[in-house]
Amino acid sequence: MVTFPLNAWYAAAYDVEVKRELLARTVCNQAMVLYRQGNGQVAVLEDACWHRLLPLSQGRLEGDEVVCGYHGLVYNADGLCTHMPSQETINPSACVRAYPVVERHRFVWVWPGDPALADPALVPDLHWNDDPAWAGDGKLIRVQCDYRLVVDNLMDLTHETFVHSGSIGDRAVAEAPFVATHGDRTATVTRWMEDIVPPPFWAAQIRGARGWEGRVDRWQIIRFEAPCTVAIDVGVAEAGTGARQGDRSRGVNGMVLNTITPETETTCHYFWAFARNYRLGEQRLTHELREGVARIFAEDERVLEAQQRAIDARPGQAFNNLNIDAGAMWSRRLIDGLIEREQPGGRPVIPLRPAA
Amino acid sequence: MVTFPLNAWYAAAYDVEVKRELLARTVCNQAMVLYRQGNGQVAVLEDACWHRLLPLSQGRLEGDEVVCGYHGLVYNADGLCTHMPSQETINPSACVRAYPVVERHRFVWVWPGDPALADPALVPDLHWNDDPAWAGDGKLIRVQCDYRLVVDNLMDLTHETFVHSGSIGDRAVAEAPFVATHGDRTATVTRWMEDIVPPPFWAAQIRGARGWEGRVDRWQIIRFEAPCTVAIDVGVAEAGTGARQGDRSRGVNGMVLNTITPETETTCHYFWAFARNYRLGEQRLTHELREGVARIFAEDERVLEAQQRAIDARPGQAFNNLNIDAGAMWSRRLIDGLIEREQPGGRPVIPLRPAA
Amino acid sequence: MVTFPLNAWYAAAYDVEVKRELLARTVCNQAMVLYRQGNGQVAVLEDACWHRLLPLSQGRLEGDEVVCGYHGLVYNADGLCTHMPSQETINPSACVRAYPVVERHRFVWVWPGDPALADPALVPDLHWNDDPAWAGDGKLIRVQCDYRLVVDNLMDLTHETFVHSGSIGDRAVAEAPFVATHGDRTATVTRWMEDIVPPPFWAAQIRGARGWEGRVDRWQIIRFEAPCTVAIDVGVAEAGTGARQGDRSRGVNGMVLNTITPETETTCHYFWAFARNYRLGEQRLTHELREGVARIFAEDERVLEAQQRAIDARPGQAFNNLNIDAGAMWSRRLIDGLIEREQPGGRPVIPLRPAA
Repeated sequence: MVTFPLNAWYAAAYDVEVKRELLARTVCNQAMVLYRQGNGQVAVLEDACWHRLLPLSQGRLEGDEVVCGYHGLVYNADGLCTHMPSQETINPSACVRAYPVVERHRFVWVWPGDPALADPALVPDLHWNDDPAWAGDGKLIRVQCDYRLVVDNLMDLTHETFVHSGSIGDRAVAEAPFVATHGDRTATVTRWMEDIVPPPFWAAQIRGARGWEGRVDRWQIIRFEAPCTVAIDVGVAEAGTGARQGDRSRGVNGMVLNTITPETETTCHYFWAFARNYRLGEQRLTHELREGVARIFAEDERVLEAQQRAIDARPGQAFNNLNIDAGAMWSRRLIDGLIEREQPGGRPVIPLRPAA
Repeated sequence: MVTFPLNAWYAAAYDVEVKRELLARTVCNQAMVLYRQGNGQVAVLEDACWHRLLPLSQGRLEGDEVVCGYHGLVYNADGLCTHMPSQETINPSACVRAYPVVERHRFVWVWPGDPALADPALVPDLHWNDDPAWAGDGKLIRVQCDYRLVVDNLMDLTHETFVHSGSIGDRAVAEAPFVATHGDRTATVTRWMEDIVPPPFWAAQIRGARGWEGRVDRWQIIRFEAPCTVAIDVGVAEAGTGARQGDRSRGVNGMVLNTITPETETTCHYFWAFARNYRLGEQRLTHELREGVARIFAEDERVLEAQQRAIDARPGQAFNNLNIDAGAMWSRRLIDGLIEREQPGGRPVIPLRPAA
Repeated sequence: MVTFPLNAWYAAAYDVEVKRELLARTVCNQAMVLYRQGNGQVAVLEDACWHRLLPLSQGRLEGDEVVCGYHGLVYNADGLCTHMPSQETINPSACVRAYPVVERHRFVWVWPGDPALADPALVPDLHWNDDPAWAGDGKLIRVQCDYRLVVDNLMDLTHETFVHSGSIGDRAVAEAPFVATHGDRTATVTRWMEDIVPPPFWAAQIRGARGWEGRVDRWQIIRFEAPCTVAIDVGVAEAGTGARQGDRSRGVNGMVLNTITPETETTCHYFWAFARNYRLGEQRLTHELREGVARIFAEDERVLEAQQRAIDARPGQAFNNLNIDAGAMWSRRLIDGLIEREQPGGRPVIPLRPAA
């Protein structure tokens, strides 16, 4: 059962996690060890010694090289063995895999598939995460579910009404119409709620940023980039001031940035951040927003893990679809397309019935 | 490996467990959600939303309907979807399974098989559990073993001598002869121990109820009703006063009521109660007897779970039988018959060698 | 996947562990119950009642017989059933397996294979463990790895330099040349480090035993006896006094005794002891050495369990070999030979590539 493509950039770590020490992480079932070299560049090696398979992450970093903690074999950042104990000559085939790596937008991206295809231009766009016009922060959580369930979750925000009824949930979302479009690697769901009373969260944001309160135009523009990145453009502006037509100058804007890396078929590393374009210098607000989003995502986590257990208990049972699933269905199709390109004849694991 | 029939009534809950809230329980590998409707009737639905499989038990009860905790689909007590988010028309195929349910003798019984066969007349007879001529109470324990091991255990009470040597065990039981008979759905083991010194438990009961002590005639009449209900008629009467011939007026009588519901192939819900026909109004005695039986069943639980682990470690290894297993062998044959009727060509999982 | 031969003596317990009570232990996937009879002899039976498979270890010892804790069947030390409840005649086929057993060198050895082949002369030589010319003590630890990983570990002591860098590790070991030889059931690795500064441990031993300090000749002679016993002759003597030629009178000598019994394919019972030929009467030194070795072996345990998890995650992936693995490769070949003799056509589980 293939549930993810290998020829893709996946976030393996937040930038701050990778230091001058060994960090073990599994991406797409591949155990990796990450470390930062003396020149600041990140190296990512297969986390298993060529000799006896001990995880290299149990050894130690010596300069820019990794020393195995069992028999002392040494590997450089290209994965080549540069020292073997008690012997002068080194077996030329002695090496571990080195993964292509790019550090961008505060994430360390690795390419678990064919290195020849690892084009840095394909790194997903999450530039808001280190753009000086935006401020914010995020977290990494490990969720015990197929990463695609997280994508499904993000592609349909009507769930806010039911899962997050205690926080950001609002019947306006479930009732507003939306438009779903798609390209070769992207799918977009756009929802405008015009001339509404803002929910408490957004009322507080616009009051804090502009000292203003009243009816607003609210937007949610969810952009999926295959296989597992979702950037959500959210915000409100004074009603009728042209936000939908492109003038957001009377509003406040946030970006919910998400990239979800498969660890195994049924677990994932979920990296997220919340960036805003207002009150940039207020560290207290950054802290408040990050912890507030963390509380909301913990509600999703509970649902997602229960859903995974239900799937595990019902092998072969299909999902059914509603109108609200148009965006999720497009993202699934784009993922399936990437998988099928790598696995001729491969079938998606969870068949999707057409919506009624 | 089929270990239980589906076309049968199984106790899913004690009556008091089912309230105006959602209760999750698995019966015969089927995840169910139980709740009591406004009119007092119990509803039992499949515990997985039609849409994305989230357990409905993670949602909430709204009137007599269940609201899914993910996207807000609503189901009525028949399992039909009555509301979908963001759409006017409802897919007519949208539903979850509703299970036939009967509440009787303090248990909520469900029928996991073909609903057309769910005849309430087939609910096992445990009427002592709410008969005003009897008083008592019981418990539910989850045991990590095949439910049939519990049936085996109850069908042969010589184990009392060894497992319960610290409480009700008594060599008299292991040494007394017994008679095993059977019908189409029942098997009965009858053991009379006449003119004996009563064991401490029964000496105390007859002294407490009748102010009398001395030699007794003691009986154990174990009645199995396929697939998993065992009612045990136990008691003592003054020796030689005709109890065996039918006059129990000089004795005390208890009913050990047991029904054991498969949760999975190797776990079960064990419902039991102890009812008596003496000192009916004494709540303190009810409490004492219930807790005393609970201590005894905890001894069985330890043995049953060890036995299951031994079976798991020796796939395919047969049980051997002794003369004492006549009742257990009949109950196994009746269970196997029910399974085979549903699974043409199916074989019982644990082959039984003929007794030597 | 066969990972161990059955026709071999395996240590099942330390002598002191087996008393006048029932001890459960699994050897080569076979659940056994051990106990000491009235005459001091150890009996070892299959740990599953013939009747209903309950582990006999959950019953009780009565004289030299075992009473099952469920229905009271009784077995003698030969595994024959001598009593059945409620019946006069005993089924003559009623028995459990009795294992050949030898108590020698402080271990209780069992033979899980064909009893006809159980020749006591094949018990591995660990005589130092109860030789009055030696003093010492040891422990039993359960390690979650294939027992052969422990053998590999012991057959190449260069790992001391990296795993035990905080205690006995020393670059001298990784750098010293060694000689590997082998016989039909044994493989030996001999390493002499002549005229060296002793590492702290050995400096302390020779100073304590002989009041002397200075440069030494140091030796490590590792002797593997198939399938799973490794006796390591270690020590130092004053440099140039002829230790290598056979005169160790100016030195101190220890024996690291190891026998590793497969519990399952991926867990083992690791019995070890450290015996010395100096300061024999000093119980405090025995205690210090035992606890010191225990700390060192805990470092190995961490590595071995990580290695096993890595193997489990990479089914089919071969080990690669270095020059230092000559001893381990011979021990693996001898083990494979024993397995193949029992399993015509059987293949070793972890293929070994030839060293470069």
